[in-house]
Amino acid sequence: MTYCLGIVTRHGLVMAADSRTNAGVDYISTYQKLFNFSAPGDRVILLCSSGNLSITQSVLNVLEQDLRQREAENLHSTATLYDTARYVGNKMRQIQQQERGWLEKDGIDSKCTLLLGGQIQGEASPSLFMIYSQGNFIQATTETPFLQIGETKYGKPILDRTLSYETALADAAKVALLSIDSTMKSNISVGPPIDLVLYEANRLSIQHQVRLRSGDPYLLKMRQLWEIALRGAFEQMPSLDWDRYK
Amino acid sequence: MTYCLGIVTRHGLVMAADSRTNAGVDYISTYQKLFNFSAPGDRVILLCSSGNLSITQSVLNVLEQDLRQREAENLHSTATLYDTARYVGNKMRQIQQQERGWLEKDGIDSKCTLLLGGQIQGEASPSLFMIYSQGNFIQATTETPFLQIGETKYGKPILDRTLSYETALADAAKVALLSIDSTMKSNISVGPPIDLVLYEANRLSIQHQVRLRSGDPYLLKMRQLWEIALRGAFEQMPSLDWDRYK
Repeated sequence: MTYCLGIVTRHGLVMAADSRTNAGVDYISTYQKLFNFSAPGDRVILLCSSGNLSITQSVLNVLEQDLRQREAENLHSTATLYDTARYVGNKMRQIQQQERGWLEKDGIDSKCTLLLGGQIQGEASPSLFMIYSQGNFIQATTETPFLQIGETKYGKPILDRTLSYETALADAAKVALLSIDSTMKSNISVGPPIDLVLYEANRLSIQHQVRLRSGDPYLLKMRQLWEIALRGAFEQMPSLDWDRYK
Repeated sequence: MTYCLGIVTRHGLVMAADSRTNAGVDYISTYQKLFNFSAPGDRVILLCSSGNLSITQSVLNVLEQDLRQREAENLHSTATLYDTARYVGNKMRQIQQQERGWLEKDGIDSKCTLLLGGQIQGEASPSLFMIYSQGNFIQATTETPFLQIGETKYGKPILDRTLSYETALADAAKVALLSIDSTMKSNISVGPPIDLVLYEANRLSIQHQVRLRSGDPYLLKMRQLWEIALRGAFEQMPSLDWDRYK
């Protein structure tokens, strides 16, 4: 499984991803799922991937190839992030068309989903897209400032309760890690290292990119503090007065 | 959708269920999903249901009919809760066999899942089972003292972080409500009223059974306090020191 999320606020963009991939429970391995295609000074382009690994790797490969061969359309030539989402969606369609029939013969799911976040010179603010297997896509908005792919449910309650378009970037990074930690706690097929990128709006280059490995002191401390805080909050909550309902 | 959960600890049993049912997003209605078949003094028998409503209602009807007609095997004649799970599983198989073919013709999912919790005179402790569409079942254990059915993921992190077999019953009831509240916050197809039952081990009759309706003051206060506590915990958590990872 996989869990990736992107958060776009007034102040910039945070993207994060776990690195665990499993083909059944007896073949678990580590694959990077957060990719940086930025051209500092001109554009920030970040991609996260989930779903069928052979498809997402193929899509990433053709994106890289287009860049290397300086095709007319590539990740560094698009004028807006919307155009970039359209271009990546088209590459997704091309790979799905090549592969899907062969996989379906053996009942193998070819589905995959990408997150695309960034900002291109001339754009007023960063933006964030989710690109589906079908090549279509949706965009995060000020009302719903985050998008998730993969194993999304365990980590959603914390996002629903803390995030808004006004959230500070350092806080968005904290929430992203807490959301991934909640997911890792409840689903063993999501696991470290965690890749985390922070981009401040209008800088056109990434401020921070880190990889938090298994046993990372901050991750351990975060989980410990969070559990203590949850238990404290829980203990302070009044119990139900059953007699009220008689 | 539906969300029900059962928690069994050294001190007894808590079972809880929402009451929202939807056939698509344009047909939402309220159905009870927690049923009390206890015979006070002799046994506590609680059932929660999720999945295809026509199937779960049929299973409940034949269980009631067996009771009314005093069939040799019924919910009040079984010797152990394990036997009760086996009996309910057989009724599930009978109904699935009658209905499934007709539903499958139109691609309708006949799946459903039940929780069975309680204790029968002569048993050393309460127990909790999850009965599948296929009629087989699993049992909660001291290591994993809770079982969930329906929309289970949003409400699982809070259970994973707070529950153990030693948890006090009043706390288990609080966690059950928080788990349902987290689910309602993230999935609009799970909703009030919430049915909640508390059973103290070895009493052979239920101590508390309440129905918390939409706008219930305790539910509102719980959500508010929990959000304040989560935000407080979140703000106190140190931010990531990005420079450490350079």
